Amino acid sequence: MGEIYYNPWKSAYKSPFGAIQEGQSARFGFLGADSGIDQVYLVIEPEGQKAYRIKMTPQENGFFQTEFAFTDGKGLYFYHFELEYLSANQQRFTRYYGWSGENGHGEVRDYLKECMNYQVTCYQKAEKAPDWYRQAVFYQIFPDRFFNGNPDGHVNNPKENTFLYGDLRDDPMYIKDAQGEVLRWDFYGGNFAGIQAKIPYLKELGVNALYLNPIFEARSNHRYDTADYLKVDPILGTEAEFQELLDTLHQEGFRVILDGVFSHVGRHSRYFNYDGAYGPGVGAYQDIKSPYFPWFTFLNYPNEYRSWWGVKDLPEVNKENEEFQRFIYGAKGVLSKWNQMGLDGWRLDVADELPDEFIAGIRNNLDHYEDKVLLGEVWEDASNKVSYGVRRQYILGDHLHGVMNYPLRSATIDFLMENCSPEDIALVFTRLQENYPREVFYNSLNNIGTHDTERILSQLEGDYEKLSLAFALLVTFPGVPCIYYGDEAGLTGGKDPDNRKFFPWGRVDETCYRECRKWLALRKENHLLQGGEFGLIYSERLLGVLRYDETQFILTVLNPLGVEVIVSAKDFAAFRELPLTRERLAELLEGQRIRAHGSYVIEGELSE
Amino acid sequence: MGEIYYNPWKSAYKSPFGAIQEGQSARFGFLGADSGIDQVYLVIEPEGQKAYRIKMTPQENGFFQTEFAFTDGKGLYFYHFELEYLSANQQRFTRYYGWSGENGHGEVRDYLKECMNYQVTCYQKAEKAPDWYRQAVFYQIFPDRFFNGNPDGHVNNPKENTFLYGDLRDDPMYIKDAQGEVLRWDFYGGNFAGIQAKIPYLKELGVNALYLNPIFEARSNHRYDTADYLKVDPILGTEAEFQELLDTLHQEGFRVILDGVFSHVGRHSRYFNYDGAYGPGVGAYQDIKSPYFPWFTFLNYPNEYRSWWGVKDLPEVNKENEEFQRFIYGAKGVLSKWNQMGLDGWRLDVADELPDEFIAGIRNNLDHYEDKVLLGEVWEDASNKVSYGVRRQYILGDHLHGVMNYPLRSATIDFLMENCSPEDIALVFTRLQENYPREVFYNSLNNIGTHDTERILSQLEGDYEKLSLAFALLVTFPGVPCIYYGDEAGLTGGKDPDNRKFFPWGRVDETCYRECRKWLALRKENHLLQGGEFGLIYSERLLGVLRYDETQFILTVLNPLGVEVIVSAKDFAAFRELPLTRERLAELLEGQRIRAHGSYVIEGELSE
Repeated sequence: MGEIYYNPWKSAYKSPFGAIQEGQSARFGFLGADSGIDQVYLVIEPEGQKAYRIKMTPQENGFFQTEFAFTDGKGLYFYHFELEYLSANQQRFTRYYGWSGENGHGEVRDYLKECMNYQVTCYQKAEKAPDWYRQAVFYQIFPDRFFNGNPDGHVNNPKENTFLYGDLRDDPMYIKDAQGEVLRWDFYGGNFAGIQAKIPYLKELGVNALYLNPIFEARSNHRYDTADYLKVDPILGTEAEFQELLDTLHQEGFRVILDGVFSHVGRHSRYFNYDGAYGPGVGAYQDIKSPYFPWFTFLNYPNEYRSWWGVKDLPEVNKENEEFQRFIYGAKGVLSKWNQMGLDGWRLDVADELPDEFIAGIRNNLDHYEDKVLLGEVWEDASNKVSYGVRRQYILGDHLHGVMNYPLRSATIDFLMENCSPEDIALVFTRLQENYPREVFYNSLNNIGTHDTERILSQLEGDYEKLSLAFALLVTFPGVPCIYYGDEAGLTGGKDPDNRKFFPWGRVDETCYRECRKWLALRKENHLLQGGEFGLIYSERLLGVLRYDETQFILTVLNPLGVEVIVSAKDFAAFRELPLTRERLAELLEGQRIRAHGSYVIEGELSE
Repeated sequence: MGEIYYNPWKSAYKSPFGAIQEGQSARFGFLGADSGIDQVYLVIEPEGQKAYRIKMTPQENGFFQTEFAFTDGKGLYFYHFELEYLSANQQRFTRYYGWSGENGHGEVRDYLKECMNYQVTCYQKAEKAPDWYRQAVFYQIFPDRFFNGNPDGHVNNPKENTFLYGDLRDDPMYIKDAQGEVLRWDFYGGNFAGIQAKIPYLKELGVNALYLNPIFEARSNHRYDTADYLKVDPILGTEAEFQELLDTLHQEGFRVILDGVFSHVGRHSRYFNYDGAYGPGVGAYQDIKSPYFPWFTFLNYPNEYRSWWGVKDLPEVNKENEEFQRFIYGAKGVLSKWNQMGLDGWRLDVADELPDEFIAGIRNNLDHYEDKVLLGEVWEDASNKVSYGVRRQYILGDHLHGVMNYPLRSATIDFLMENCSPEDIALVFTRLQENYPREVFYNSLNNIGTHDTERILSQLEGDYEKLSLAFALLVTFPGVPCIYYGDEAGLTGGKDPDNRKFFPWGRVDETCYRECRKWLALRKENHLLQGGEFGLIYSERLLGVLRYDETQFILTVLNPLGVEVIVSAKDFAAFRELPLTRERLAELLEGQRIRAHGSYVIEGELSE
């Protein structure tokens, strides 16, 4: 009997690879003609719609084949194969072939309910991000913790009932009561002038774009508790200073995106005004006649209200409210104000909490400009995310350009800490590559750490060589790298607040800095790392990240082990077809020694 | 039958009044010759020695009388009277007469064990304080909380792992963990330059001496955890700045005393060096070979050691250690260093924890200068204080010049909150006047609040009129008034840390300030308030504070009630003979209206 096999990661079985644009067709090939199967049906169901059952045509090469046109709108299409057998006594019976749940191949099942569907993401529109974005190297700044640009070091406009750190080298800490409520917020005093003063440092490091954590008026040091969307926080400086910072950054070739926090506001915002600081009668908490009253959902006025994850400090805003929508993305709204100042894009905080229509409204606002980018905070595979019972439209067009690549961070740590094999990494990323529309995949904002995670150096148990490999993965994987401030300077720490130490000016760790700068430079020098096609090769011990175009390639082989590895080219495998033959690989790599926690980068021409 | 009576507060019964200098005699008169008593014995016992039983001589006026010479050394002498009766059948029997426990009079008891002794304090030496001290009006400054003299408001040399207040108007708070341990100390940044800058303010207020809470290097903001006795805390400024402050204050007619904290040091001192901040091998905790090792008492080295009230942050010093004694009060020791810079005296923290010999050693050091004063933190009647089983020598000569007058503060609050009667106040102070050597009584450092107590305005429930009366008591009572910084400016608050708010510059409460300044001015204008004799008169509702000399008097009558009182002179009484006759009182006061929470001051000549 011949083989029964299907694997959408190989071109013989599905072409083109991965997501399909609406209206386009794909060819499906199913191997099994020599295995006693009489008929094969492609059963494909646009989510929420009626399934198609398409009879596939047997080919001479043992394949059954069909074309399918994705004309039922954007969204997820789920499919499997129905295998019709004719038994010896001419009885017809049916078996099913669906995804194995492992790599691309599937498996035969007797019962439909045991058969897992494959996914095809059908997108409406190729989300080509602005060119600047794809060429960018981002640096994420938590503004309070970067640098205070006042020559005398004073903190601008400290807030009432807050504490300032006595020494910028002190570790951050929360000042909480026994119930865990923050009693007073703590500030180091980083500000706009500080960022401006450090532009030379940033250029020297090799970054050319900034992602700033929130900068609008708020009570806390993180400012996710927005108090006024139309004002910068006075502790950071004035609006004029922010404009000056933006203008200077632009002159120096930088782009800047901001954190858009639209799911909730601060309890102490002018919209909610819990403690009356914005005056009597102002804000929903103070007066049900407040224009902001309908923004919130009070279960029992005024003290019971919907809030983000039940955190009373962060009342949730009703994003269906049209006034709020107009306020945020209307022609004279919040986004417009800051966009017109020259902002280059937004990163949407907790995108899962924002309805698709709201995100689309934001995108629509940005699309009035030519070069603004919209990214979303999504921690998992954004193609098939469900929130509040709704399948999300994030990456199907006219919503997000891309999402934060937290899977890369997890994979990096797991790989370098030897919690998973090189093959596992290849698996995760081939799946993501398959599920994401091509442009979206390349639009990912890659990170190996953010303000919401442990510091990468701590995750890697302080190992500088592993840190260097983490930077390597950050710049060689598709997507736009984003360095979390201080990761290049040796900052360590667990979760919040330890991941938000003040930048160690004067004490920058030279090894970390050198390694980071080296990998960023490699990305800058090699255009393939910005825009090249992507594929992974793996052996039991090594991972190779291949980026290529029609004529050239760059291959970065990483050794996560604590021992030197001598490459044996025949040990490498790949889930997809790549333009490097095994012979070429042997030419390039055979016998190459890769030191413990080391890497080997090779660039070259692709053989014809 | 005639009366049986004794009352050492009246000159017919005991003369002179009060404490007696060693070697001097007193005359005791006991009324009872017409009451069937045959013989009266004065039984008087120098504490710890054999009692004398002295047969008293009957007089024509119904008194028994004797002289007693206090020649058995300084200390407390306790006495009562033995009354010998001859019954109708010529049987002799004995009864006893001792103190009633109320005012001066006593009572007859059948059994000796029921008879309470009277006390006579016998002192070695009249503790005449320097003249400047008796004329002084003190202002107590908690240095971190007064004023930051840096023009740009920066805090000098903030310590590692401390917090600075974001806004000087913020209320102070402790940053503690769930176990109540301070996690980080909090600072406002008051400093030497700040005090210097506010000398004009202090002069305008009417003070001419400063008592500074600790200023030596320490970890905390209160600095009772001394880290280095030979350095000023860098957060306050340099030693040169302290010298400049001292010199400027002296030029401006001020005197300055410091807080001497010698019972314990900070765990993080160079002497103990708990965390090794002073280097490896330095300090008793780090090394038993440390020269400071014998200063401490380790129960189980290094983690179990004697500490002040069990507070591990404050290891207790063994004051018997001769090295420590030499270090503190030797010719080249701590006191000498600061005295030579021009310091005018010391207030000894927790005097109860310092052995008498240690205090005598300090005093001996100060007596090398002409005009240095030594005061002690003693909260109760210092004449009969016992600590660690030992009767204290504080005020008997060659130890303290005087003590902090906390009884005045308690009396002030009780009186103004109507928790006690004017008579109760008279009682407490007549007793204190009796027990203290005359000079010591007048050397008291009077307060109505300190860094260790609730703010007086809060104790008086925010009543400004009562506050004015509290200032009246502070300046009219014998002793040297000391204003706790900010009490004149309307500061409120409960105990530590709320009693340590930053001085409200720019928001000084004008009423508080005016009343404080008015009473301080009265004291300055009237020499009787500085040095005059003292007596109290009282009625059911009013208290009169009389200060007088041979020719003049000043009488301040205070009405603690919420209603106007019309004076009826005949209602007044006094525990002691005063130079104002009832007729003179009537002339001065009869029919005078004293408003609710008001006072009436009258000065005049004493009639012949």
